[in-house]
Amino acid sequence: MRLAALLSATAIAFAVPATVSAQEVDRVAVNRIIDQGFNHSEVMETAAHLTDRIGGRITNSPQMRETERWTQQWFRDRGLSNVRAEGFEFGRGWSMVRSDVRMIAPRPLELRAIPVAWTPGTDGTVSGEVILAPMSRVADFDKYRGKLAGKIVMISEPTDAEDPTSPQFRRWTDDELAGRTGYNQPTHSHVNVSRDGGRDNFALRMDEFLAAEGALGWVRMSYRDGGLLHGAGYTHRTGATPTLPGMELAAEDYRRLARLSRAGAAPALEMMSEVRFHDEDVNAYNVLADIPGTSRSGEYVMAGAHFDSWAAADGAVDNAAGTAVVMEAARILKALNVRPKRTIRFALWNGEEQGLHGSLAYVDRHLATRAPLGDPELDALPNGQTWRARWPVQPRPGYSDLVAYFNIDNGSGRIRGINAEGNVAAAAVFEEWLKPFYSLGATTVSLRPSGGTDHVYMQTVGVPGFQFIQDPLDYGSRLHHTSIDSYDHLQPEDLRQAAVVLAGLLLAAANSDEPLPRMPMPTQPRPTNPFGN
Amino acid sequence: MRLAALLSATAIAFAVPATVSAQEVDRVAVNRIIDQGFNHSEVMETAAHLTDRIGGRITNSPQMRETERWTQQWFRDRGLSNVRAEGFEFGRGWSMVRSDVRMIAPRPLELRAIPVAWTPGTDGTVSGEVILAPMSRVADFDKYRGKLAGKIVMISEPTDAEDPTSPQFRRWTDDELAGRTGYNQPTHSHVNVSRDGGRDNFALRMDEFLAAEGALGWVRMSYRDGGLLHGAGYTHRTGATPTLPGMELAAEDYRRLARLSRAGAAPALEMMSEVRFHDEDVNAYNVLADIPGTSRSGEYVMAGAHFDSWAAADGAVDNAAGTAVVMEAARILKALNVRPKRTIRFALWNGEEQGLHGSLAYVDRHLATRAPLGDPELDALPNGQTWRARWPVQPRPGYSDLVAYFNIDNGSGRIRGINAEGNVAAAAVFEEWLKPFYSLGATTVSLRPSGGTDHVYMQTVGVPGFQFIQDPLDYGSRLHHTSIDSYDHLQPEDLRQAAVVLAGLLLAAANSDEPLPRMPMPTQPRPTNPFGN
Repeated sequence: MRLAALLSATAIAFAVPATVSAQEVDRVAVNRIIDQGFNHSEVMETAAHLTDRIGGRITNSPQMRETERWTQQWFRDRGLSNVRAEGFEFGRGWSMVRSDVRMIAPRPLELRAIPVAWTPGTDGTVSGEVILAPMSRVADFDKYRGKLAGKIVMISEPTDAEDPTSPQFRRWTDDELAGRTGYNQPTHSHVNVSRDGGRDNFALRMDEFLAAEGALGWVRMSYRDGGLLHGAGYTHRTGATPTLPGMELAAEDYRRLARLSRAGAAPALEMMSEVRFHDEDVNAYNVLADIPGTSRSGEYVMAGAHFDSWAAADGAVDNAAGTAVVMEAARILKALNVRPKRTIRFALWNGEEQGLHGSLAYVDRHLATRAPLGDPELDALPNGQTWRARWPVQPRPGYSDLVAYFNIDNGSGRIRGINAEGNVAAAAVFEEWLKPFYSLGATTVSLRPSGGTDHVYMQTVGVPGFQFIQDPLDYGSRLHHTSIDSYDHLQPEDLRQAAVVLAGLLLAAANSDEPLPRMPMPTQPRPTNPFGN
Repeated sequence: MRLAALLSATAIAFAVPATVSAQEVDRVAVNRIIDQGFNHSEVMETAAHLTDRIGGRITNSPQMRETERWTQQWFRDRGLSNVRAEGFEFGRGWSMVRSDVRMIAPRPLELRAIPVAWTPGTDGTVSGEVILAPMSRVADFDKYRGKLAGKIVMISEPTDAEDPTSPQFRRWTDDELAGRTGYNQPTHSHVNVSRDGGRDNFALRMDEFLAAEGALGWVRMSYRDGGLLHGAGYTHRTGATPTLPGMELAAEDYRRLARLSRAGAAPALEMMSEVRFHDEDVNAYNVLADIPGTSRSGEYVMAGAHFDSWAAADGAVDNAAGTAVVMEAARILKALNVRPKRTIRFALWNGEEQGLHGSLAYVDRHLATRAPLGDPELDALPNGQTWRARWPVQPRPGYSDLVAYFNIDNGSGRIRGINAEGNVAAAAVFEEWLKPFYSLGATTVSLRPSGGTDHVYMQTVGVPGFQFIQDPLDYGSRLHHTSIDSYDHLQPEDLRQAAVVLAGLLLAAANSDEPLPRMPMPTQPRPTNPFGN
C-alpha cells in the first residue's frame, strides 16, 4: 500500500511501504495513532476502573480475580484475538476487611496502621504493652529471648525523620536525560543460593520466634514519613503463613511509641485486624491478548505491564498506569484496524509485586528455562530464588518468536525514551523508531540497564526486553506502594502520550523488515572480581 | 558590676555596665546565655512533654487543662515569680475519643478521617449514600433542598490534586532575607462588621439546613493532599453547637468518593465518631510567669507563644515549638539568676487557633480596649469580631508598662531575624540587639508587617509587639495543623538557637536605658481607596 492511499484511509490495514527502509517508521500510521490516542483516548476510563472501582489488587485477592476477569472481557469487547489467562502457581490470596490500632497508654490516640500482607488477623482485639525490640536477622532473636511474653513487639529500629529538601514531583531535564545514556559495564558477583529461600523466610523465622516467646503480635515502622503506609508482605506461599498478626504503623506514630517507651511511659496498644485468606485457587493468572500478524505471524512483539498491586490504596501509579497504557495501546491499534506483519501481543502480568512471578512464569513456559542445579532441595525452591544461579539457559521452541518486548512500570510519567539495556544494535534501531515521537518528548535512547520489573527475566535469557524511560514525577518520592497511590495522582496527559508512543513502537517493531537485533545468548559470566572481596 | 567581675561569676545578678550604651547588648551575658542554651538545653524535653505525653491541646479539652496545670507547675519548679492563670470566656471544651469512616459501597474501603472540632459524635454508627453538594455560602442551600434526606453530604468542591514541584523543607537564603526587609505601606479598607458573627456562623447555618433536610451528617475534603488531615472547627461557643456530625476526609479519599458519585456508582459511607464535650468551665486560661524587675519593675518586657493546638496530631511545630522556646528562655534566664531592670514576663496564650482569643483577652484586660460601637446587637458579639471597627483605642492603666513583646509561632525554624512591623525607630534598636546573634543566623530586621498570631492585637493598640522571622522549613508545606505535626518533625538545633536569641533579646529589652520606641497611638485610618471599588 502506498502512502497516498493511506492518507485517505481511515480504518484499513497497514503495511510498511516498500519505499520505507527496515528501520524507518510509517509516519502516516503515527498520525493516526496520535489522532486516536489524543482525541479519542480511553486511558483514563480504564485507569479509573482499575483504581476507583476495583481498588488495590493484591495477587489472588478477590479484587485481583475481578481484575483478571474484567481485563479479559475488556480485550474481548475490543476485538482482540486469542484473549486468555495463563495460570502459574503463586499461593494464597489475602485481603483486608478492616483494621484499627489505638494507643491506649499513656494516653489514648488513634494511630495510622495497615495489616502486613499475608499476616493473619487478630481474631478480635489484642492489647498489650509494646516492647522496642528491633530485629532484622535471626541473630537478633537472642537479645530479646524471655522478654516478649504478652507484648506487642516493635520490630523496627526507629530511624529519624528526614527533611524533604528536594521537590517530590519532577520531570527529567534534557541534561539529566543526556547524562543517563551511557553504557554501564555489567558487574557479576558470585551467585549464592540460600537454602533458606526468599524474603519471606525471615518473616517466618521471626514469627516462629515471637510465637514461641508468647508475643501477641508485632508492629513495624513505615519506611516513608508523612503518615504514609505500605503494608507489603511476602508470606504468600501455601503452608507458610505466619501465626501472629503484624501491622505497619505510620513513621510518626511508631517513633512516638518508641520515644514513650524509651522515656519509661510504658505505652500500650490495642490492635484489631480482620483479614481473609483465599485458597480456592493457588494459581495466579497473566492475561494475554493478541492482534494477529499477517505475513510473519509466527513472530510477535509484546507490550506488558503488571496489573497486580499492593493494597494500601488503589495501585494507581503502580501500576494501573502502565496497565491502562498497554490496554490503550491495544485499543488504539485495534481501532486503526492495523494488520501488522508480526503478531502484537499485550500482556498483563500478575504477582509482580512479590517477585516478578508472572513474567518469570511466561519466560519459563514460552521462551527459555534454565538447567536445574542438581541439588533436590535447592531445585524444589521457587523458580525465581535459584534462577540466576542455574546454567545453561535452555531455550524453549518459541524462544526466537518474541522479537521485542516493551515493559511499562514506572508510574504515570510520560515516555522520555527507552533503556536499550546494553543492546547497542537495538539502540540504533530505537533511535530511528523514536524520531516521530521527539516532539512528544520521547527523545532518549539509553544504553543503561534498568531493573526491578517484568522485562528482567527476559533479559536473563537473552530475549530483547526493554523498559521505557519515564518522567519520574512523584512516583518514587511519595506514591510508590503507598496509601495515597490513587487515581487523582495520575497524569492524564502523560498517560495519553505513553499510549501513543507505545502503540507507535509496537507497530514499528511488528512491521520492521528485520527482527530487532538481539544480544548473544547469555552464558555463565566470569565474576567481575575473580578474587572475591 | 564590672565586666571583669562578671567573667568569674556563674549565677549572680546582671546589670548593664555603665559603659554600655542604651542600645548595646551585654555580650558577656550573651556568652552565658549561649552556654546555658546550647550546653544545658531542656527545650526538647519540654517539647516532648507537650507533644508525646500530652498530645493535641484543643482549648478547654482535658489535654489543654493538663497543659495549663503542667506549665504553671513547670514555671514554679524553676523559680519563676507570680505564676498564674488568667481566664477568659471561650466556650465549650471538646475532645475526640475514637472515630472510623469506611466506604461500604460500591466496595469496602477504610478511609482516613477526623471529626471536625466541636461537631457532635455520631451516637453509634451512621451509614448512608453520599451526595456531592458543595456549599460555601447560604445561597448554595437552595440548590440542594429536598435532595439530602438520609444522605451523608459531601460539602466540599473536590479540587484537583496538586503536583508538589517545590521542596517541602527549606531555609531562607540570604537573598530571600534581604528581599523581605522593605517597608510595606499599610492598606486600609472599610471595615464591615457582620451581624452574622464569625466563621462559626456558616457552619451553624449549614448545620441547621442539613438537619432540617434530614441529612445524616457531612464530610468535607482536607485542603492538603497526601492523606493529611486537620479537623479544625470553630463552633465552640456555648449554646452554639451543631446537631450533625461532620468529618474531614483525606483529599484522596474525598476525591475518590466524588468520582464514584459522578460516575453513578452510588458510593455510601459508614461513619462513627465518639467525641466529648467539656462544660465544667467555659473559661480558657493564659499562663503567665515573671522574672521580676529591679529598678524599673513597673515596666515589663514579654515573650509569648500560644500553647493550645489542633488535635490531628500533637501540635508540635504549631506550637509546642514556640511554647518550649519561651519556656526555655525563661529557664535560661532564671538559671543565670538575672536581675533585670524591667520585669520579664513569659506568656502562654490559649485559644489562639480559634482567633487569637487569649492574647486579645490579655490586651483588653491589661493594655487597651476599644470603644463600643453603640449598637447593642453588635456590641454583644465576641470581642474579636468587632474589634477593628471600634474607635478610639482606650488605653488601660497598664498601657505604657509593656515596653516590648516578642511572639514566636512559626514552627521550629531557627530565628533569622525579626519583623519590626513598620516601626522604623524600633528597627534601628533591633539592629543593635541582634548583632551578637549574627553568627547564629539571626541577621535580619524587616520593616514588613507579619500577621496571623498573638502580637497582632498588640499592634492594633499601638503596643510594640513583634514576631520573629523563622526559617520556614516544612511548617507551611506539610506540618501546620496536620496529622503529622508530631515531635519527630521538630528541629532540635533550631529550637535551641531560638531560645538563645529570645533570651538575649528579652534581656536586652529589659535592661535598655530607654524603652523600645513605639508607634503613635493608632487612630481611625482613612481608607486607602476612598472611592471604594
